[in-house]
Amino acid sequence: MAANGTSRFDPKFTQHVIDTIGPKTSPRNREVLSALISHLHDFAREVELTVDEWMMGVRFVNSIGQISDAKRNEGQRISDVLGLESLVDEIAHKLVTEGADPTSSSILGPFWSPNAPFRELGESIIQDPAPHGHPALMHGKVTDLVSGKGIPNAVFDIWEASSNGKYDFQDPDNQSDNNLRGKFRTDANGDYHFYCLKPTAYSLPTDGPAGVLLNLLDRHPMRPAHIHLMITADGYKPVTTQIFPSDDQYLLTDTVFAVKDDLVVDFKPREGDPKAKLDLEYNVRLAPKDYGN
Amino acid sequence: MAANGTSRFDPKFTQHVIDTIGPKTSPRNREVLSALISHLHDFAREVELTVDEWMMGVRFVNSIGQISDAKRNEGQRISDVLGLESLVDEIAHKLVTEGADPTSSSILGPFWSPNAPFRELGESIIQDPAPHGHPALMHGKVTDLVSGKGIPNAVFDIWEASSNGKYDFQDPDNQSDNNLRGKFRTDANGDYHFYCLKPTAYSLPTDGPAGVLLNLLDRHPMRPAHIHLMITADGYKPVTTQIFPSDDQYLLTDTVFAVKDDLVVDFKPREGDPKAKLDLEYNVRLAPKDYGN
Repeated sequence: MAANGTSRFDPKFTQHVIDTIGPKTSPRNREVLSALISHLHDFAREVELTVDEWMMGVRFVNSIGQISDAKRNEGQRISDVLGLESLVDEIAHKLVTEGADPTSSSILGPFWSPNAPFRELGESIIQDPAPHGHPALMHGKVTDLVSGKGIPNAVFDIWEASSNGKYDFQDPDNQSDNNLRGKFRTDANGDYHFYCLKPTAYSLPTDGPAGVLLNLLDRHPMRPAHIHLMITADGYKPVTTQIFPSDDQYLLTDTVFAVKDDLVVDFKPREGDPKAKLDLEYNVRLAPKDYGN
Repeated sequence: MAANGTSRFDPKFTQHVIDTIGPKTSPRNREVLSALISHLHDFAREVELTVDEWMMGVRFVNSIGQISDAKRNEGQRISDVLGLESLVDEIAHKLVTEGADPTSSSILGPFWSPNAPFRELGESIIQDPAPHGHPALMHGKVTDLVSGKGIPNAVFDIWEASSNGKYDFQDPDNQSDNNLRGKFRTDANGDYHFYCLKPTAYSLPTDGPAGVLLNLLDRHPMRPAHIHLMITADGYKPVTTQIFPSDDQYLLTDTVFAVKDDLVVDFKPREGDPKAKLDLEYNVRLAPKDYGN
């Protein structure tokens, strides 16, 4: 239990815990779990974590899973509030496309659905009434980053909250399944167009551990308005991202830290379309699969 | 998103997340949560955590609470397997009694009960049959670290698993409530004695996230045999600890890292006592409340 120059705690303890990792652990698991143990211990020593604080942390971790189910992923939300999903997204993005300039990625978030239906170009993802919502025509081109040519048959998967700030999952009384979700295929020129809502800022659910954490951090729970996108095409690296209206007040303080400068977009007035008074042009650049490898 | 000398990732991101902490957060919460965010981010950058690994971590965190309830604290168990409870115990111990030499503390673990009954000196905590169990007379003195005098009326709270390696909570078919639990008061000389079992090594439950983690780490799930103790007395710093029979094979590889040299004890043969063939003398030194302050 002798202290060394930098700590009055047993300098061998953390290495002992790491040394118990057995020979059958894969090299990557050994690397990740050793680093996890080191940082966890360094954190506890650095702040001299008390027994009460540790037990509060244990109870907090237990509470995350207790409120989670197939439609609520509180673990992901806590990780988002701590900036971890956004950081992991940055790491993945840097690894895949370092030096390139495709459309920036952003975090997936907990509301993507594998069940969103395919819809025809020109259709609307607005299935249910959205009081005070502002319909918009969203359109653009998906292009090859290298050749600049349009990519036909790319899948444009979009999901967004309704004008009350809730996704279909969270709002079964007002929204049918797959409201404000849809997948579209680009045409022979790589173009797409469909109707959606100008998105609305909303609060993360604060009735669970994320609310407890945000309260401890004295932070607001708001996400700036955003549309989620996932664009995939054969032969290209997929991109998952979000776009944000430039007039949103929470761009600088997004509670999950997902905003990047090049993902901020302008909705413009649209004339002569009975279906929408707003227009959003948004073009996507995809990197070929072998690009940068 | 420029890289600095040590990282190719945005050098401002972590500070930005920390800077969103609001003014109403207490100084201690700010210190602890800032350090938590820093270490979490440093960990992710250091190992270049992938999206799949992050999502596996999120699912793992959710699974901890999902298997936890009033009688199963998987969050505490995970923290134990990572060495955190033992480290927090060391930190608390160093802070309270630095330079002193009272009985060493060890971790509380998840099986302490606030409901253990008071029993009379000389009674047994063995309520139910324990096949192949070895009853022992445990006895000793609780003394003042400074004066060396016995401390009357100290509360000696003991709990242990049965010979099948299970606590009453985990084994309702074979054990009645409070089997192998009890609180005793020392007599006017500070002495105590009661009957218990020589403890049995056991496996942590491996049907939940702790089993998943131990498997990833290629570690065994065994705890060396041990008896839990919590000794309290008016005017003294309390001690929570564990004692371990010296003949246990898992002393060096305790899966929760709770063993300390001075907590290893010898069970000796006992003659002429129909209730027990083993004898354990164990003395406890408590530090006065204001000691070392």
